[in-house]
Amino acid sequence: MQVYTTPKLNKVKVTSDFWKRYRELVVKEVLPYQWKVMNDEADISISEDPQNNGQDKNSHAIANLKIAAGQMKGHHYGFPFQDTDVYKWLEAAAYSFGYHPNPDLKKITDNLIDLIADAQEDDGYLSTYFQIDAPERKFKRLQQSHELYTMGHYIEAGVAYHHETGNEKALEIAKRMADCIDKNFGLEEGKIHGYDGHPEIELALSRLYEETGEKRYLDLAHYFLNQRGQDPAFFEKQIKADGDSADRDLIAGMRDFPREYYLAAEPIKDQKVPHGHAVRVVYLCTGMAYVARYTGDKDLLAACDRFWNDIVKRQMYITGNIGQTTTGEAFTYDYDLPNDTDYGETCASVGMSFFARQMLNIHAKGEYGDVLEKELFNGALSGMALDGKHFFYVNPLEADPKASKGNPGKSHVLTHRADWFGCACCPANLARLIASVDEYLYTVNGDTILSHQFISNEAEFDDGLKIVQTNHFPWSGDIHYEIENPNDKSFKLGIRIPSWSANFDLEVNGQAKDLPVEDGFIYIDVDDKSLTIDLKLDMGVKFMRASNRVSDDFDKVAIQRGPVVYAAEEVDNQAPLSLYQVTPSDQVDYHFDEKLLDGVGVVKVAAQRQKIDDDNAPLYVDATQPVETESADLTLVPYYSWANRENGQMRVWLNK
Amino acid sequence: MQVYTTPKLNKVKVTSDFWKRYRELVVKEVLPYQWKVMNDEADISISEDPQNNGQDKNSHAIANLKIAAGQMKGHHYGFPFQDTDVYKWLEAAAYSFGYHPNPDLKKITDNLIDLIADAQEDDGYLSTYFQIDAPERKFKRLQQSHELYTMGHYIEAGVAYHHETGNEKALEIAKRMADCIDKNFGLEEGKIHGYDGHPEIELALSRLYEETGEKRYLDLAHYFLNQRGQDPAFFEKQIKADGDSADRDLIAGMRDFPREYYLAAEPIKDQKVPHGHAVRVVYLCTGMAYVARYTGDKDLLAACDRFWNDIVKRQMYITGNIGQTTTGEAFTYDYDLPNDTDYGETCASVGMSFFARQMLNIHAKGEYGDVLEKELFNGALSGMALDGKHFFYVNPLEADPKASKGNPGKSHVLTHRADWFGCACCPANLARLIASVDEYLYTVNGDTILSHQFISNEAEFDDGLKIVQTNHFPWSGDIHYEIENPNDKSFKLGIRIPSWSANFDLEVNGQAKDLPVEDGFIYIDVDDKSLTIDLKLDMGVKFMRASNRVSDDFDKVAIQRGPVVYAAEEVDNQAPLSLYQVTPSDQVDYHFDEKLLDGVGVVKVAAQRQKIDDDNAPLYVDATQPVETESADLTLVPYYSWANRENGQMRVWLNK
Repeated sequence: MQVYTTPKLNKVKVTSDFWKRYRELVVKEVLPYQWKVMNDEADISISEDPQNNGQDKNSHAIANLKIAAGQMKGHHYGFPFQDTDVYKWLEAAAYSFGYHPNPDLKKITDNLIDLIADAQEDDGYLSTYFQIDAPERKFKRLQQSHELYTMGHYIEAGVAYHHETGNEKALEIAKRMADCIDKNFGLEEGKIHGYDGHPEIELALSRLYEETGEKRYLDLAHYFLNQRGQDPAFFEKQIKADGDSADRDLIAGMRDFPREYYLAAEPIKDQKVPHGHAVRVVYLCTGMAYVARYTGDKDLLAACDRFWNDIVKRQMYITGNIGQTTTGEAFTYDYDLPNDTDYGETCASVGMSFFARQMLNIHAKGEYGDVLEKELFNGALSGMALDGKHFFYVNPLEADPKASKGNPGKSHVLTHRADWFGCACCPANLARLIASVDEYLYTVNGDTILSHQFISNEAEFDDGLKIVQTNHFPWSGDIHYEIENPNDKSFKLGIRIPSWSANFDLEVNGQAKDLPVEDGFIYIDVDDKSLTIDLKLDMGVKFMRASNRVSDDFDKVAIQRGPVVYAAEEVDNQAPLSLYQVTPSDQVDYHFDEKLLDGVGVVKVAAQRQKIDDDNAPLYVDATQPVETESADLTLVPYYSWANRENGQMRVWLNK
Repeated sequence: MQVYTTPKLNKVKVTSDFWKRYRELVVKEVLPYQWKVMNDEADISISEDPQNNGQDKNSHAIANLKIAAGQMKGHHYGFPFQDTDVYKWLEAAAYSFGYHPNPDLKKITDNLIDLIADAQEDDGYLSTYFQIDAPERKFKRLQQSHELYTMGHYIEAGVAYHHETGNEKALEIAKRMADCIDKNFGLEEGKIHGYDGHPEIELALSRLYEETGEKRYLDLAHYFLNQRGQDPAFFEKQIKADGDSADRDLIAGMRDFPREYYLAAEPIKDQKVPHGHAVRVVYLCTGMAYVARYTGDKDLLAACDRFWNDIVKRQMYITGNIGQTTTGEAFTYDYDLPNDTDYGETCASVGMSFFARQMLNIHAKGEYGDVLEKELFNGALSGMALDGKHFFYVNPLEADPKASKGNPGKSHVLTHRADWFGCACCPANLARLIASVDEYLYTVNGDTILSHQFISNEAEFDDGLKIVQTNHFPWSGDIHYEIENPNDKSFKLGIRIPSWSANFDLEVNGQAKDLPVEDGFIYIDVDDKSLTIDLKLDMGVKFMRASNRVSDDFDKVAIQRGPVVYAAEEVDNQAPLSLYQVTPSDQVDYHFDEKLLDGVGVVKVAAQRQKIDDDNAPLYVDATQPVETESADLTLVPYYSWANRENGQMRVWLNK
């Protein structure tokens, strides 16, 4: 019997041209830009941000920390969770040191750790809004306070910073925060038997457990998950005790959302489908997946599976975007996927990537890799302009500047990326995902290494084991692996066969090989000193349709090539785009244009375009009379790259 | 040369079965029900009204008048314009006396006139909110106060009541109100150089001018129209002077709408297209059409033509509904006609009927009759259930109970008619239209009588001239006229050829006749003692499409027969309705079902229904794979009659 080893992954170096460009952009543009913004030194406008919620000033995020640290005088400004902009930025910076050492930036971040340490209270508490302007209200209005959410984001940043740089102070702050939370929350008498309105602390404590091995942190995460919804009236009771008046609300209007919105109407194990705020849902799910894996809690695992299934099979746009409505940035209901009023928050796609990554740790199923890939190349990536300095909060699948301006039901849909946002959760969230994408390429489960993403990289494991993946993905589907295994270890390499590539060719050491696809993976036994694998994925342009339960996409098609979903933009075509009717066929033109949009694959599909009706013609006419049409190609570019040129219409779902 | 007479219309008796049913319903159900509601004696719930704006109590409308009259103690309750519910009801009652004398009701209405007279102040002012709770703020916040709107509605009621019953007191109240307004508004020094936020007074004063011949009232109406927008900052200045704080707003949030919303951003003559609140627009247009006709003001006439053209050709649903967005109950922009987030307020369709009627007085164009007919048989009529006791405020063209419940962007769309509304403008507005439909059948312009509606009636003119129209419209298109002209007068009879009936047959005195259609009318010279006319309209079932500028209706069809637009309901078909793809063809089944929905024509069209995709299938699949379909008829009922049975999906625009 074969004795398998358990490989340990040490380091992944991303060599993909596509991702190196984005990762260097994070270093050169995104991080410096966001640092200036948070220090109120950038010349930005957030007035056009449809989510600005009345915020019309700068970020003030660093100033809030300085005031809390006693280094400045003044009041808190911004949302109660304004601190998290800093923490997510810090986390992104930490990851960037792993691939791009940067002593100048490191000075800034080391100093920032000092500032955060100074702002932290003796008992570990840190949430600048409460420290500065409402110290008597700490932990008293958790539905809205985001205190644990805020500290959770620091904990993530502290873990990452410690992990990348070895800075002990960064980890110490995180541990003191967690200890503070542990002291205040739990089932014991005298503690708050509650939890935060916005999940995050659960996944953060899990990461702290991973970094420190301290089981108390995992137990605390587990407590928060189990306690959720046990007393459905918990938030209302707290609000009543804290002063019921709406004037005392920390975020106006938040009290109006029902308990379901906060995932607090019943214990998680009883919740059939995810409700409410999309980011809350996927952060919660990520925390559940961590804790389920470490504790074996079957109820949590079942909830993960249930929520995953509902989101992915019934509430996810083809781009991976989730959260259909602007009202509360929330899920609506199964198969309700309107394209032009979609919310599809960038943060929700980032969070979905977290969830997918954690699910891969639990089940070796290709669908998690599929969704992760979908987010990386579409729904999440769309959140940032190619210049790294403009951002989408909302990611629509159909947009029209006239509609965004003229129909209030679409006013949340920007047709160009904004400088910044009043609620600036998305930009740094996406930055930390891009900067840590190396951590999303492999999953090691026992004797099996799953290679589930086709992002060129060099991965080093222990015992000298090395996997080098080379490709020009997502433009090419030719995936080449070179494996060095100098110590003749035996293990399995699982390679994901994406759902978009039913057909594929495989060669191992130059020999064609026919392997079965098991739950989305093929498995290759490795025990030789070296091995080459060549996988050819099906990069044909695909005409996709939605389940016919989705009435908004009925009789429409979307174009996909590899993992990349395509969009038609007005700048490449003749508006209105609704007049094109595409003809699914094999005769599709694809070419890579290295000059366009920093290098993208461009798709041209055959279409008929209706002659536009006269502006003064009757609005309703006999439908049996023929309408004049002409042949016209429709040009499409990757969805993630839209809105980087002239402002105009865009649509993913095309008329047939 | 023929010498033509100018016929004078004395009386129209509606004999149409279809309309008699509705008009008797007004007498038997609608008026008694609404009277009980306004007296807070009905067992109703307005909690489910998505427009309830926090109103959760009863109407209080009569109580407000009693308090203002000193007959009761208490505070005002409801909107500042709560009085108008009473006035519109009174106006409907007045019309009903013309076709259904009703001494019991007459006692109530006479007493109501007395109550209103008691509530009126010595100087003619009457708006109970200000009298009871804010006497110092009269006319000081006109953007929101609705004072002139409120008094305008009384003036309309007073004119109608006087006209129908000869009650002088009713007219006296109206005149005193108008005098009060005249004393307070105008260009003279010391008067307010302003106007109401909600147009209505302009059309009301025009009607008062018609009833009294007092030119001062016409001049005052003209003043309001000319003054509108002359100082675009008028409302803001008033608000500043009245106390800028939002706490002092009369209706929360109304200050946030831009000047365009109030049709106050520039003088009317400079406004290119109508903006803002749909009801405001059509009330303003109605007033403009009155005043343009009586004064010859070419700027106002041009504005009427311009606004009409934009609404009808670019912003009207096929049902006649207008106002595309719930935000401010407003127009959005040209060709933006979403079906499932539509607002389409019943009042806006009622107001559009007013506008159409007045335009017929100006131009003898069939399109005004077409639109009036569209409203009468579809968009306006849909506002009331067949029982006369349930009402739609919002009239969608596509509805799904799941969507109304689950997607906040559609929460304004009820899928069943409500008992009543916090803002209860629609029920009595529709009642007064139905009760006065006899006034909408003929337009006399000089020597020409236009018969523009096919609603059976007997019309008496002076000199013994009588026109009797007999038909079973809208179910049959056979229209029979008998004309008695005992004094051999000479005049022209114009009969509208509806735009939906390009083909028609005409016989005059049994002889086929071929007459040209001029601007939507055929003209018959009448000078014999008697004449019969038989017109056969094309009642074929029509498959209609929208201009392809309307992206929401692209590649969709709607079914129309005669003026009646059809809707598919879940109760007659298999949900989801989106799976049906209809096939335009001549083979359409139509039958009249006298038992269904109080008697309706039912249409069945051939369709293919897609087999519904599995609930657990992937959400996105290869579009080139065939989808299983089966033949299935789609059954449709008249749009106005939907939502009178089981709650379920409905759609007007069908997939092809």
